[in-house]
Amino acid sequence: MSKYIVAVVGATGLVGQEMIKTLEQRKFAVKQLIPLATKNSVGKKVKFKGASVPVKETKDSLFNGVDLALFAGGGTASQEFGWEAVRRGAVVIDNSSFFRMRPDVPLIVPEVNIKQIKKHQGMIANPNCSTIQLCVALKPIYIKLGIKRVVVTTYQSVSGTGKEAIEELQTQVKTIVAGKKVKPAVYPKQIAFNVLPHIDKFMENGYTKEEIKMVNETKKIFSDPNLAVSATCVRVPVYTCHAESVNVETMKPLSVDALRALMSKSPGLTMIDDPAPTADDPNRRTYPLSVELAGTDNVYVGRLRKDPSVECGYDMWVVADNLRKGAALNAVQIAEFLF
Amino acid sequence: MSKYIVAVVGATGLVGQEMIKTLEQRKFAVKQLIPLATKNSVGKKVKFKGASVPVKETKDSLFNGVDLALFAGGGTASQEFGWEAVRRGAVVIDNSSFFRMRPDVPLIVPEVNIKQIKKHQGMIANPNCSTIQLCVALKPIYIKLGIKRVVVTTYQSVSGTGKEAIEELQTQVKTIVAGKKVKPAVYPKQIAFNVLPHIDKFMENGYTKEEIKMVNETKKIFSDPNLAVSATCVRVPVYTCHAESVNVETMKPLSVDALRALMSKSPGLTMIDDPAPTADDPNRRTYPLSVELAGTDNVYVGRLRKDPSVECGYDMWVVADNLRKGAALNAVQIAEFLF
Repeated sequence: MSKYIVAVVGATGLVGQEMIKTLEQRKFAVKQLIPLATKNSVGKKVKFKGASVPVKETKDSLFNGVDLALFAGGGTASQEFGWEAVRRGAVVIDNSSFFRMRPDVPLIVPEVNIKQIKKHQGMIANPNCSTIQLCVALKPIYIKLGIKRVVVTTYQSVSGTGKEAIEELQTQVKTIVAGKKVKPAVYPKQIAFNVLPHIDKFMENGYTKEEIKMVNETKKIFSDPNLAVSATCVRVPVYTCHAESVNVETMKPLSVDALRALMSKSPGLTMIDDPAPTADDPNRRTYPLSVELAGTDNVYVGRLRKDPSVECGYDMWVVADNLRKGAALNAVQIAEFLF
Repeated sequence: MSKYIVAVVGATGLVGQEMIKTLEQRKFAVKQLIPLATKNSVGKKVKFKGASVPVKETKDSLFNGVDLALFAGGGTASQEFGWEAVRRGAVVIDNSSFFRMRPDVPLIVPEVNIKQIKKHQGMIANPNCSTIQLCVALKPIYIKLGIKRVVVTTYQSVSGTGKEAIEELQTQVKTIVAGKKVKPAVYPKQIAFNVLPHIDKFMENGYTKEEIKMVNETKKIFSDPNLAVSATCVRVPVYTCHAESVNVETMKPLSVDALRALMSKSPGLTMIDDPAPTADDPNRRTYPLSVELAGTDNVYVGRLRKDPSVECGYDMWVVADNLRKGAALNAVQIAEFLF
């Protein structure tokens, strides 16, 4: 079996670390791991298969001989080193939003559109975390019933922002418990005991960049520019897992039970949706929860119900670990298809 | 000026206390306040206009001579004493869901359908907290453009459940900060650092009772049984104020700027929606936030934008204090129209 030299850019960040962990857990055939980051991280080491591997500063020359480069160092690193890594022979799977909408860069969710990977020219983009889980949940509905319109509202965890956001939530909670006032730094406003309808910067049409990403990336992944999507993205004081309230209007009808059965067979998707509550125990009904699903691989759907406000429509609740399926795992799954 | 004898049932609960505070703040013409509660609360006192008023156990005879009875003691108290209070001469404004859908009980949001109050037969229902703020936000849109369909997803604070839920969130946060495992009691699952897509009990169609309330009460308030509404209700670890992500499909189009101007003139509604972000300061854009608006009276709308996924549609973010406009204030406003 061939073995590969794998570089991870942004190796000390939350997603980079999750990528390295995922490569090891999934036994990806790594001959050599090259963890790269900014100058500030030089001197740090990352753990991989029991060894401590020193982090190097990202430089063009370090991509010589690299087979696979996983980029999780943000848009700036991807812009500066992405195509250079490709020129030096690596296949790049990029987690930033920088190349996602380029026509020459496939945007891949393996369970949804792996066929589009054939068109790649060395660079493959990993979609936004909130987009990936939405697309995995929509796929079986799209194929079986056709989708007219999606209205999605998110509950996104702070780990999507990075380590410093996790620390900010922890610090704010402790500060408030101690009866003191918080000073937001990572987020524009207090995140503890609050919800923020503001992720990434505002665009001219009033949507945030995060919302626009969800809309445009979903259209690209389904190769369907006419797919109607409306998104509202909200940060919540949860550490890991994004949750989404999704309303789907379909072209054709199907009973909820049949749709649930169909979705439960869809790859990468697990239904947590016990459909049989009892009168004396209404809490018997199950549904996916962020705190219970952190660290797991699949996309989880629950609370599936027929929306009576349209002829054919459904409401559902979609949860996934934003660092795993929403980022690192999806990237490694793409790599597994390639190598 | 006439002065009235006012009974408050559930006087020691969060909403009951807020009602007593609101009566005082709005200088409602109270001649005598009679705070009522269950046997367990006898011995407690409530503060009203500088005096300490002892709480009595709710009994039929105590409604003799009462002009106005505000009920905030839950469905059981309303069922047991509601019509009895009416029979003894009081006008009842009931905050429970028990009578809301009865055709002989008007369901009133003063800014939206105060005219329907004329039909009352002694009993007036106060809508559900999440419904009230939705209806105040929708009113100007409904009147000016007509509404085809509403898809709403909520972020509801724990104070909507009561004092014991506030304590549960506080305790769970401290437990988790101390590195220990939480034991949910009030909620079926952990609420700290989590979001729960489960408010009130599950119904046979998969919706929760809270979601069904939002749909049915909104139709009743607008006297429009054909108004299409889909609701997903979610509890979040926030202490006070409910937030809602609202997608509205309208019959007619209007520019976002014109709609914003229109809504800003609507009674009880305040736009927090600075429409002019700048490239160098994207955070300049304002939006309503739960932590900033607790304790205030209005319904706040921000993030108004034209939804490009339909011909005529808008997305918006709606926040209100669930104990004030969502409960106590709305009830006292109804009383002000009556007396």
